[in-house]
Amino acid sequence: MRWIRFTINQQTSYGILQDEHIQRVKGSPFEGYEKEEVYYPLKSVQLEVPVIPRTFYCAGLNYAEHALEVARKAGKEPNLPPRAEIGYRANNALIADGQTVVIPRDATEKIHYEGELVVVIGKKAKNMTKENALSCVLGYTIGNDVSERTWQKMDRTLWRAKNSDTFKPMGPWIDTEFDPTHSITTVKVNGIEKTIYKTNDMIFDVPTFIEAMTSYMTLWPGDVIWMGTDGHSPDLVSGDVVEIHISGLGTLTNPFFKEPLV
Amino acid sequence: MRWIRFTINQQTSYGILQDEHIQRVKGSPFEGYEKEEVYYPLKSVQLEVPVIPRTFYCAGLNYAEHALEVARKAGKEPNLPPRAEIGYRANNALIADGQTVVIPRDATEKIHYEGELVVVIGKKAKNMTKENALSCVLGYTIGNDVSERTWQKMDRTLWRAKNSDTFKPMGPWIDTEFDPTHSITTVKVNGIEKTIYKTNDMIFDVPTFIEAMTSYMTLWPGDVIWMGTDGHSPDLVSGDVVEIHISGLGTLTNPFFKEPLV
Repeated sequence: MRWIRFTINQQTSYGILQDEHIQRVKGSPFEGYEKEEVYYPLKSVQLEVPVIPRTFYCAGLNYAEHALEVARKAGKEPNLPPRAEIGYRANNALIADGQTVVIPRDATEKIHYEGELVVVIGKKAKNMTKENALSCVLGYTIGNDVSERTWQKMDRTLWRAKNSDTFKPMGPWIDTEFDPTHSITTVKVNGIEKTIYKTNDMIFDVPTFIEAMTSYMTLWPGDVIWMGTDGHSPDLVSGDVVEIHISGLGTLTNPFFKEPLV
Repeated sequence: MRWIRFTINQQTSYGILQDEHIQRVKGSPFEGYEKEEVYYPLKSVQLEVPVIPRTFYCAGLNYAEHALEVARKAGKEPNLPPRAEIGYRANNALIADGQTVVIPRDATEKIHYEGELVVVIGKKAKNMTKENALSCVLGYTIGNDVSERTWQKMDRTLWRAKNSDTFKPMGPWIDTEFDPTHSITTVKVNGIEKTIYKTNDMIFDVPTFIEAMTSYMTLWPGDVIWMGTDGHSPDLVSGDVVEIHISGLGTLTNPFFKEPLV
């Protein structure tokens, strides 16, 4: 099943995707829902981010090649994370599939994509084990952890490097049947393939993160966990269109635009 | 005016504090409200955190004495932050005034309080200046940025050191008329004063943070900004009660309890 969050006639609702149509529901996949006999063509609605999370978790370094690349660029010894320690991103930065990433006018040319698998939590969960961890997962979506590398290196926190407005595209839907085991993540810029990696080739997989996180924290319905990225990105420029495709799950597409100097 | 969020008969509402009574409203201070002719004695309701923020911002190091202390304990040169760079905390960790901070059983003895002024945003805001920054502020409340210092030092992120469940007491209310200019923050443990500092003695004050943040980010109604702390905390033990008093604003009181070994 694929859950879509969308707006039409200034009303935002959840719906279930059926081929090229959306069946609207009353409620949400998190708090319960009833199907309505209301259908919209997918192309007629405005997509919204599939959920505004209560807490926006992000694994950060979680694929070997990306971690080695980060170390190399910083001129440091590669330092793979020894434990599944979760990080955070911020809701102000979320935008939906199709919306534009606006690069701040004072950003450097070091604007990169990071195509990521996103776990969407469906049930309140504490003290999960690797074995039962996936029982609290509603499904999966796709995220682009857009990053300004110069700010990422120079600032004390990731505030503007990772959390400037529009820097966190997420969507297009939540797929409740997706299984990352044999999936491939492919990132294209302007239709040309730039990055390809095995989606499940993580240092710490989804059950490992959920077990570690819930030993100290309660996961809530609607929380999201961005699972990190592999490979590296070219420098993006105004006008580029980035497509992140995860096989079996969908494609997240966003154009990039740099604010002109005033 | 003081805004309270509370639960009675399994229903959570906002209300306005009037002496020792709460007048219930329909709606909230963020999306608009109507007063109802329903009153409860303050003592009869269960207090809730005054808001569950869309994004939970935290200044981190923002007072000179605390920053010097942190550097000294880490054996590093003191390094005052050169710019107002905001950080983040997580909603799972929020608890209300009066609720218990539960110290995980595997935590070390290095459990510390950090008494902080909290700014509550009332209006959507972008590109504010220092001069008009306070116009997007609804009011102020109090936070305790509970920290496990061993984990804070050893982990790659602040996940369990700062964001374990119950580690972020916030409340008791939002005061819309509070002015930090001449205020004093006092922290007591079991009734004995341990820390006292000038609330407004920040390295970067509220208007400076709002100006910097909104140059890259949109602030949303209900967002909170924790402004950092001064001084330092003794090691807290199970059974301790921590009261954070900000003069002119109120008192946030929370007992601490350590989970027994199984």
